[in-house]
Amino acid sequence: MQGDQHRQHISGQFNAELDAMKNHLLEMGGLVEQQLGRAMSSLLARDSGEAQEVVRADQQINEMELQIDEECSRILARRQPAASDLRLVLAVAKSTTDLERIGDEATRIARQATKLSELPPSSGTTPEFRLISGHVGNMLRQALDSFARLDVARAIEVVLDADAVNAEHDAAMDSLLRLMKNDAGSIDGVVHEMWALRGLERVGAHATNIAEQVIYLVRGRDVRHMKPGELQSLLKVDKR
Amino acid sequence: MQGDQHRQHISGQFNAELDAMKNHLLEMGGLVEQQLGRAMSSLLARDSGEAQEVVRADQQINEMELQIDEECSRILARRQPAASDLRLVLAVAKSTTDLERIGDEATRIARQATKLSELPPSSGTTPEFRLISGHVGNMLRQALDSFARLDVARAIEVVLDADAVNAEHDAAMDSLLRLMKNDAGSIDGVVHEMWALRGLERVGAHATNIAEQVIYLVRGRDVRHMKPGELQSLLKVDKR
Repeated sequence: MQGDQHRQHISGQFNAELDAMKNHLLEMGGLVEQQLGRAMSSLLARDSGEAQEVVRADQQINEMELQIDEECSRILARRQPAASDLRLVLAVAKSTTDLERIGDEATRIARQATKLSELPPSSGTTPEFRLISGHVGNMLRQALDSFARLDVARAIEVVLDADAVNAEHDAAMDSLLRLMKNDAGSIDGVVHEMWALRGLERVGAHATNIAEQVIYLVRGRDVRHMKPGELQSLLKVDKR
Repeated sequence: MQGDQHRQHISGQFNAELDAMKNHLLEMGGLVEQQLGRAMSSLLARDSGEAQEVVRADQQINEMELQIDEECSRILARRQPAASDLRLVLAVAKSTTDLERIGDEATRIARQATKLSELPPSSGTTPEFRLISGHVGNMLRQALDSFARLDVARAIEVVLDADAVNAEHDAAMDSLLRLMKNDAGSIDGVVHEMWALRGLERVGAHATNIAEQVIYLVRGRDVRHMKPGELQSLLKVDKR
């Protein structure tokens, strides 16, 4: 009986550690979402003050990445998790990298905002930017939500959404190219907008990576590099 | 005695598995190096045939990523490695991601080469491209070599090299911007060169990540986000 109680106690502690690790990832995700939102608002408003705050706050995200990765290593070393517990630790360890890189992209977008704030105003592509940043921000939120609830159907939708973002990105890039060709005076500004746009596209790719980790975690199946058709059939299985 | 032999046998098998996993990573690294080299040669020669081969071969890299990650999971689940063995598995798992993304960047560079092959020739920035692609290719080779030999001093040099690549990237980007402003007809081509240049800069960043994993693996110390000064003092300790 005492042995059983001891084992239950140990397994309770282990579950608490896994929960804490996952919660730290979601906390990091919340901060990254906030950074991305502020970077976009600094870009649209050409607000260098807000942009500088984004750049400053990136360090906190970097520290969270290191801490969570250390947590993952510690759990692997001490608890030797198996099956879905092991997949959870590995999915968290891969997702911290993506979150940290979304943080980097937010910083890069903020730097473009600072550069743009020094140039005369031009806002020919504001509607496109609003569209894509809304879309990409939503993908990130859904990816984090699907991680929180282990919701595979939602994760698959995020992955399937990636193509739409790419199409929006290409269309916006074409608009920017036309702008430059029609007005050489716009080149300096447009180039900064191009970098910001590319940054948003990268954020969408990282959100997709996180969603793929959720599918791996729940299903035990690595869906990276899978074709949309195969993924869709995975979704059907899930809805049965 | 039999128990000892059994343990030795098991530990021999375990070491063989770790070696195989590391060798697979290095093989993947070799293929990625080759892809990057071919992507750059297709870009400089505006050779769409070679560019298409790069795009086609990317799938092989994606498959290697999945296989090596599965190998890592299997070792973690069955062998429950500790200390430096655990760090090796984690460093390999993080490095496959970076290698796969270098492969993606090679593909993106090759796509720009295809687009450029359809435009009238212009080669104002060829020397800058040669310089950076040589530099970045060298960083990748050194990072992989440092992984093969567990050579921390070399890994630290790769990390410290990242700033030089960034400076070269910024200078080349300024040249491209000047080209566009002086000749609106060059815009289409220059934009493709800008994407390729940004791709090279990203390759340098991924090579740096791999070198950081080598330092973590050998020293047990996570040096990501560390300042150059701190890293240099780590190098001094190493040379004592």
